[in-house]
Amino acid sequence: MTFDLVANDPASKARAGVLTTAHGTIQTPIFMPVGTAGTVKAVHQRELKEDVKAQIILGNTYHLYLRPGLNVLEKAGGLHKFNGWDKPILTDSGGYQVFSLSGTRKIIEDGVKFRSHIDGSSHLFTPENVMDTQRTIGADIIMAFDECTPYPCDYNYARNSMERTHRWLQRCIDRFDSTEGKYSYEQTLFPIVQGSTYKDLRIQSAETIASKNRPGNAIGGLSVGEPAEMMYEMTELVCDILPTDKPRYLMGVGTPANILENIALGVDMFDCVLPTRNARNGMLFTTQGIINIRNERWKEDYSPIDAELGGYVSTFHSKAYLRHLMHATEMLGAQIASVHNLTFYLWLVSQAREQILAGTFRTWKDQMVKKLMTRL
Amino acid sequence: MTFDLVANDPASKARAGVLTTAHGTIQTPIFMPVGTAGTVKAVHQRELKEDVKAQIILGNTYHLYLRPGLNVLEKAGGLHKFNGWDKPILTDSGGYQVFSLSGTRKIIEDGVKFRSHIDGSSHLFTPENVMDTQRTIGADIIMAFDECTPYPCDYNYARNSMERTHRWLQRCIDRFDSTEGKYSYEQTLFPIVQGSTYKDLRIQSAETIASKNRPGNAIGGLSVGEPAEMMYEMTELVCDILPTDKPRYLMGVGTPANILENIALGVDMFDCVLPTRNARNGMLFTTQGIINIRNERWKEDYSPIDAELGGYVSTFHSKAYLRHLMHATEMLGAQIASVHNLTFYLWLVSQAREQILAGTFRTWKDQMVKKLMTRL
Ligand SMILES: [Zn+2]
Ligand SMILES: [Zn+2]
Repeated sequence: MTFDLVANDPASKARAGVLTTAHGTIQTPIFMPVGTAGTVKAVHQRELKEDVKAQIILGNTYHLYLRPGLNVLEKAGGLHKFNGWDKPILTDSGGYQVFSLSGTRKIIEDGVKFRSHIDGSSHLFTPENVMDTQRTIGADIIMAFDECTPYPCDYNYARNSMERTHRWLQRCIDRFDSTEGKYSYEQTLFPIVQGSTYKDLRIQSAETIASKNRPGNAIGGLSVGEPAEMMYEMTELVCDILPTDKPRYLMGVGTPANILENIALGVDMFDCVLPTRNARNGMLFTTQGIINIRNERWKEDYSPIDAELGGYVSTFHSKAYLRHLMHATEMLGAQIASVHNLTFYLWLVSQAREQILAGTFRTWKDQMVKKLMTRL
Repeated sequence: MTFDLVANDPASKARAGVLTTAHGTIQTPIFMPVGTAGTVKAVHQRELKEDVKAQIILGNTYHLYLRPGLNVLEKAGGLHKFNGWDKPILTDSGGYQVFSLSGTRKIIEDGVKFRSHIDGSSHLFTPENVMDTQRTIGADIIMAFDECTPYPCDYNYARNSMERTHRWLQRCIDRFDSTEGKYSYEQTLFPIVQGSTYKDLRIQSAETIASKNRPGNAIGGLSVGEPAEMMYEMTELVCDILPTDKPRYLMGVGTPANILENIALGVDMFDCVLPTRNARNGMLFTTQGIINIRNERWKEDYSPIDAELGGYVSTFHSKAYLRHLMHATEMLGAQIASVHNLTFYLWLVSQAREQILAGTFRTWKDQMVKKLMTRL
């Protein structure tokens, strides 16, 4: 994997780059749609490519490990072959989901014991087997096994957790570096900065992660309930320590405004379930602001969902039609809204990139943030 | 609306024709996907046109009347404008759904009183207002308001119901012929033969319907639980009485075998929820036979869903992937299976048409029926 920085915004820390993987290149800053169980919910792979114009998607290790399981994925030749998405894939480590199973999981030094939410069966994730699992899934970018602490988080818990995450990281690296990819293409490991909302821990973690000198780095444990200003403070602190010549991935973020603000602080990659989850609830992100499409207001509004955004679903269907589908709980409603919101997110980061290339990002960003968070 | 017969199969009563409506032509025999509430469940309009190659779809008057309601549809300029489907649309009369609300509906000579399944509000459907409603929805083909009797059905009930259906038909005709379409294009009314499974009633009803000399005729009250042989007996009896120069629409039928057998008896048009409903449950109709995609058997079968059928979803995705989506209850599973099954149904009737044109339908049909009903 290589990363080439092509532009820096003069009035912020925003950067534009090109990330090259075995499955193609990615123009950064980029948003990665979440494909939990090998599918971005309600979106055909063809739509993801041709309408949304996604360049890389996520897979969730926890879900894929349980279902369809590693046997099925390995015999298919990996996730790309299994689901037909031939562009880059990033997998999380499964840690986030496993730690969310609060009642049924137990953290030990070796790893995390947990029970499947599907059949209650017992499993153990360790730094080593999580590397092997992601090798088998076949992601282009593999994430280290970490603990994502909740917010708020007691200082001592955050410090202990961070230190364990660092110990686990070394085990991930040792395993990753002593194994090969299963499908003849290169895979890359990203370590993850933790440290909750404590500046000294974040600095310590960022320095530890930077010292590993991996081809890309991630920032975890944010967007978990803390105020946005606190998130931005942590992101800036960490970005200033992480190497400038490596891509920076801020995990699980966020709203359109969160994304633009974090791009301004030097983040290159994002993922979040927000565009697809909100779509299924009728909340649309548009070039004009936020729309709750279920509202009475749209009942007889026959204008396109988002004429300015463009693309098939956003210009072909009216707000009134989408509102009807949502009220009738027709699947097509979730389908249209999901494609729309993802198209919007990919449009947003491509616009950001153009502004960075033009050297006009900062002013544009300040105007856009205000506009995008308007509720129509 | 015009109907041109272009070929008759020498060894059966199968026919090939061309039906011309204000929204385009339809090659018969044809299958019409059911778009209950203005959407064929889980299928984008673009897929319906480009992948499924649907030529006409159905709308359900009962559902559309309740939601989005006639105001929304009329202000949109009719259903075609509302949902973006610019090819022909046929609407049922709402009778079938209303009569299914067994606990909450009441038949009187004037029509049927019922309560909405959505909010419990009271409504009255009459032959007259159902014509007006379908005028407002803007369907190209409008169905008469009838009672679809259940199976089995007491002879006296069947006769009384049929006679009322005939009286209602005259009221439908009077209203339809004294009103105009709301959107400047032609609409056409089809009357419906009833009479349950009683030969004398079916003959009497078919003669009554034929005598009305409308541009097309329908056969209702079949495929409601009676043995297939009884359905075929009634279809044949009725088709032999209905005029040969008008299209014949067998309502709510059926399995691939049912469709081929009824084409052999002279039916030109079909609709059924089977392909989409079964798709959502993981039952696929394929060129090789019937597949329950949820079965263990397909777990590691990476072959295309249906290579012979062709089309994007059926060749792009493997059986193993679709099985996984179904087990994970991912919407994409229902989406893929629905497009596949509908593509299969449209392929089936287009194949039937080619065989009729070639004069080889009968032999082909006998082989296909056996193959298509094989469970793999
Ligand atoms: Zn998120
Ligand atoms: Zn049916």
